[in-house]
Amino acid sequence: MSRAQFFRNFLTRYLRAQLPNKESTLAKFHFPVATHTIKTIKTDETITLNGHLNRKPRVRSSRSFAELRDANGDTIQLLLDPEHTPLEFLELVKSSGAEDSVSVSGFVKQKHQRDNDIEQELVVKNFQILNNSNLDAARLDKLKHSNPNDLPPQFRYLQLRTKFFQNSLKTRSKVANLIRNILINNHDFDEIETPLLFKSTPEGAREFLVPTRSPNLFYALPQSPQQYKQILMSSGFTKYFQIAKCFRDEDLRADRQPEFTQVDMELSYINSSDQVGIVVEDIIHNVWNKIGKMPTYRVNDNNMLEKVTEFDSLQFTKLKYRDALAKYGIDKPDLRSSLELVNLSKFFTSKNPDFPIVEACVLKNVEGKIPKCLTDSNNYSRRKPIVISINDPNTWYKKFVEKHVINLAPEFDESALRAELDLESGDVLAFSNRAELPYENPTPLGRFRQLAMNEFPNKWNRKLVDDAENVTTDYDSSRVFVGSWVVDFPLFNPIETSEAGDDFPSYDFNRFESTHHPFTMAKLEDFDYLSTDPLTVRGEHYDLVINGVEVGGGSRRIHDAELQKYIFEEILQITNYNDLFGHLLHALSMGCPPHAGIALGFDRLCAMLIGSPSIRDVIAFPKNQSGVDPVVESPTGVPEKTLKEYYIQNL
Amino acid sequence: MSRAQFFRNFLTRYLRAQLPNKESTLAKFHFPVATHTIKTIKTDETITLNGHLNRKPRVRSSRSFAELRDANGDTIQLLLDPEHTPLEFLELVKSSGAEDSVSVSGFVKQKHQRDNDIEQELVVKNFQILNNSNLDAARLDKLKHSNPNDLPPQFRYLQLRTKFFQNSLKTRSKVANLIRNILINNHDFDEIETPLLFKSTPEGAREFLVPTRSPNLFYALPQSPQQYKQILMSSGFTKYFQIAKCFRDEDLRADRQPEFTQVDMELSYINSSDQVGIVVEDIIHNVWNKIGKMPTYRVNDNNMLEKVTEFDSLQFTKLKYRDALAKYGIDKPDLRSSLELVNLSKFFTSKNPDFPIVEACVLKNVEGKIPKCLTDSNNYSRRKPIVISINDPNTWYKKFVEKHVINLAPEFDESALRAELDLESGDVLAFSNRAELPYENPTPLGRFRQLAMNEFPNKWNRKLVDDAENVTTDYDSSRVFVGSWVVDFPLFNPIETSEAGDDFPSYDFNRFESTHHPFTMAKLEDFDYLSTDPLTVRGEHYDLVINGVEVGGGSRRIHDAELQKYIFEEILQITNYNDLFGHLLHALSMGCPPHAGIALGFDRLCAMLIGSPSIRDVIAFPKNQSGVDPVVESPTGVPEKTLKEYYIQNL
Repeated sequence: MSRAQFFRNFLTRYLRAQLPNKESTLAKFHFPVATHTIKTIKTDETITLNGHLNRKPRVRSSRSFAELRDANGDTIQLLLDPEHTPLEFLELVKSSGAEDSVSVSGFVKQKHQRDNDIEQELVVKNFQILNNSNLDAARLDKLKHSNPNDLPPQFRYLQLRTKFFQNSLKTRSKVANLIRNILINNHDFDEIETPLLFKSTPEGAREFLVPTRSPNLFYALPQSPQQYKQILMSSGFTKYFQIAKCFRDEDLRADRQPEFTQVDMELSYINSSDQVGIVVEDIIHNVWNKIGKMPTYRVNDNNMLEKVTEFDSLQFTKLKYRDALAKYGIDKPDLRSSLELVNLSKFFTSKNPDFPIVEACVLKNVEGKIPKCLTDSNNYSRRKPIVISINDPNTWYKKFVEKHVINLAPEFDESALRAELDLESGDVLAFSNRAELPYENPTPLGRFRQLAMNEFPNKWNRKLVDDAENVTTDYDSSRVFVGSWVVDFPLFNPIETSEAGDDFPSYDFNRFESTHHPFTMAKLEDFDYLSTDPLTVRGEHYDLVINGVEVGGGSRRIHDAELQKYIFEEILQITNYNDLFGHLLHALSMGCPPHAGIALGFDRLCAMLIGSPSIRDVIAFPKNQSGVDPVVESPTGVPEKTLKEYYIQNL
Repeated sequence: MSRAQFFRNFLTRYLRAQLPNKESTLAKFHFPVATHTIKTIKTDETITLNGHLNRKPRVRSSRSFAELRDANGDTIQLLLDPEHTPLEFLELVKSSGAEDSVSVSGFVKQKHQRDNDIEQELVVKNFQILNNSNLDAARLDKLKHSNPNDLPPQFRYLQLRTKFFQNSLKTRSKVANLIRNILINNHDFDEIETPLLFKSTPEGAREFLVPTRSPNLFYALPQSPQQYKQILMSSGFTKYFQIAKCFRDEDLRADRQPEFTQVDMELSYINSSDQVGIVVEDIIHNVWNKIGKMPTYRVNDNNMLEKVTEFDSLQFTKLKYRDALAKYGIDKPDLRSSLELVNLSKFFTSKNPDFPIVEACVLKNVEGKIPKCLTDSNNYSRRKPIVISINDPNTWYKKFVEKHVINLAPEFDESALRAELDLESGDVLAFSNRAELPYENPTPLGRFRQLAMNEFPNKWNRKLVDDAENVTTDYDSSRVFVGSWVVDFPLFNPIETSEAGDDFPSYDFNRFESTHHPFTMAKLEDFDYLSTDPLTVRGEHYDLVINGVEVGGGSRRIHDAELQKYIFEEILQITNYNDLFGHLLHALSMGCPPHAGIALGFDRLCAMLIGSPSIRDVIAFPKNQSGVDPVVESPTGVPEKTLKEYYIQNL
């Protein structure tokens, strides 16, 4: 025997010792496949089910019970008894545990019937373990049954097996497919993929970089397909969409993810943003009605909620930025509540000339109690309103005037003030001041309104016209979805100059940044202000807001290269605009047609639809707040040798 | 006047001077939108069309002619004459040029009628330029009309406006949507998005890295969703798919792209790969029939091509790896040709004991001419066959035996040889040798067969049963799509040890790598060889091959954590398998059910369908061979300051 052969023989013996047992391993690949899901079984049928054991089986000397959960998250009791179940399976079930994967055959028996509720069980004739679960399954089983969200996040696969998550990801799949079919079949759109290895254009959010194997050359992952889709408009496509992955390397508080999905659309040869809105509403109404099995609502001319029943014209009302800020203190108001801010400038003047508008918000029927959350500074980003419980509806303001917190206006009239606020003893009143055109968003009172709605859901429900044409405020607002379009945003903001500790925000009113992005067209009637007073210019931008959540935003774009250059160079003072956006200017200057578009936040849309506050519930493998995927444990270190190939090294 | 105010006034005057002309700019946003596409117009109708001018208008003193191209790539002549067209538009058309974007209204006139071919023109009553094109449009107009692919690639938007590219990207959109609807509606799949910010698992191709804002922590862009989809199988989803972006940082010769798209699928609780195949074939047959308007073909039991007419059972025949290599010299044979390799081991023995099989390929009806491409070394990756033109069909071999290129086998018989090869004078014969189980793929003769088919398309067409049940070889093979499943691949390859200049490839037969990936299950009947002779083990892998192109590949996976560990540790010798694949092992050990899947190359599928040899034709913005996007000019340099945030610096 040669040395090599001896070594091979030795190796073979060693390997044979290591190789898992043949019989038990191969048994995991031979099994009867499911004939049914639990939903589709009928009593007395002989069937096979595949799934996981939902709990550790209860093994008794006479009969044993197990519980199988199928891929829909439905469960059925398995009965193993000596009369029907071969002995080997009675033995086998003893060694099985929660979350083992099994194939079970037998016949369906009616266990008992309560009213119309038939409960069935499966009498087992064949029981096969397709894969065991490790000890963690048993350890975590209690959590799984009490609250799957409490499972350690590295066990995402255990969470995902539960009915809630199965439904949530399946719903997401259905929504994506419905949106695609609406866009393609109803509106003749084409889905076009744009590159994810894009170019660094450091405007807006921080981008992820991707090193290349050329010294100091990097791709960047796109924050959105915005620039490519505008180039597509110049490429002759008239109706583009894409359900697109986007990336932002930003802090992950506030239920954000470094990668997220948006429904991205763009249309050319349109001369009104309503043409975009109609397509979007067709999506929204259909998604809610067909998949959510819930109607959508609009605010009608009487300021009441009514169901949307037609999808082929703009249904959601338009709300101007200025009006939204004045009435609700935010550009994404939740219209389910009738709470509105009241402008008190007739009665009071503000001490701060940059924040001259004095306004109030009254909470009625709260028995004079001020919940802590409404005054907790942590709930406000900077300043907060003054919140008081009303004892004397006539004289509440006096101490604030005495302390010079506010001053009386020349035309002040106490009874008119009381009438204006409709104050009663026991109401809670919040007041604050704001700028004429606020860049604070939400304003202190806007945030107060949000917190109050949150604290008292359904308390100040807006009047709703129900199916019987009755007007009611007695409804569950968590099942009511009210949309609106917010329009007439300022095209530019002044650059904020205030620092962390400042009471009031401050701005440099001679330096501008785009409110949304630099490609948004000005309202045509505001064109002249582009040279005289950029901050007065309103943009052709529109936000879709549902229940206080900004679901999407879009605009008519600048398709004129000269105007786009003017915006870059003269207003935004981007000196290297040709390096950053030259490709876009070239594409525009090649006879690019007029175009407009929108992007919808797909993760948020799906989360709203399943009634979850977190987009993590509709993402299979979300990153945690440190950007870590707890399942695969990314990101990781990389060998220096690999970095070298990319001409980079660790700092 | 304060200094600040003076400065503001000055700035306003300056800005006003820079702001593009108001009237002409705003005119680009006010225009009549299209009432029709060119395809839908009827004679005498009054209509509006939007589109680009396909050429520079011909301006005459009496009448002018222009040509409008709409978004479908269709064109129509525009007639501007003083009788119908207002004077201002007659003037305007003089200043317009090719690729200007326009809105045109008027009435449709029948120009003339040839047989059934009615040609119409639009008599212009309103003509509006929505955006001018720059001078490059005129400069490049000739190229655009002769061959859009010759346009400089930075003008991709001009290419994309042409009918070919409009059709190609629109077809791609239709294919994606059809595939989604088949998987969701016919087969109950869910589309689930998996992360693109993944973990570096340096097996296989080179990955793109993504630095994070933590020292020495990187994400990697995924080469495929393979690991996440297996974790999804452990998460209780039974039918997953995703049309997924994937990334490989490899050399971009050979029509590859650093980012590409695949149709990725996985099914759990299945016990045969046919269950995957049936779903895939449903896709393939439907895509070809419904979108390509072409049938698909199978090789029937008589070795002839016949149309596939049923989609609900496996139709494409299975071809074993060994047989594919023996008959066609490659694991992805193009079955449209009847050319087969002939094993001559009965007649000859090879000088090289590691490559003992002597085989030949005969080209008939080529009049003794050997095209240069068949002998050009550049067309072969390493060694090439000996190619001769046959003068004497009986004695051609003699000089090779004399020169000891080959040796006569003991049982050599000249007349049997001639009969075996069916040789005639004027045939071209190629012969070479190969290993018993070749890891050279293609073998020299396999490559020869490819080159010969390429050089003589349709010459050796396989017999085809046509609609009238007649057998014919007289068909256009570019319209015939023949699929097959290639199976029984070796699960492992020996590590190749040969170097660039070597005549023959050489291997270290004691070190193994996965032929496809380390998650592929062994054929159950080969289980024992996992410890005794890993190279003998065949994998439960299947490739879908259409017309010599590997359209997809998949396998049944290892769902047993112990077996997977054995493969990692004992066979592949991956010592740090827990760092790289621990997440997968954990997911498997949590009762992960048996599963199998496949990935289809979506770009290639679309390119085949539109009859293009290049995936660049079905990608909106492909990278060039240097990985550069010529439209946006990525990748780019990044400021050191930005790199610092990512704790990296340039080398």
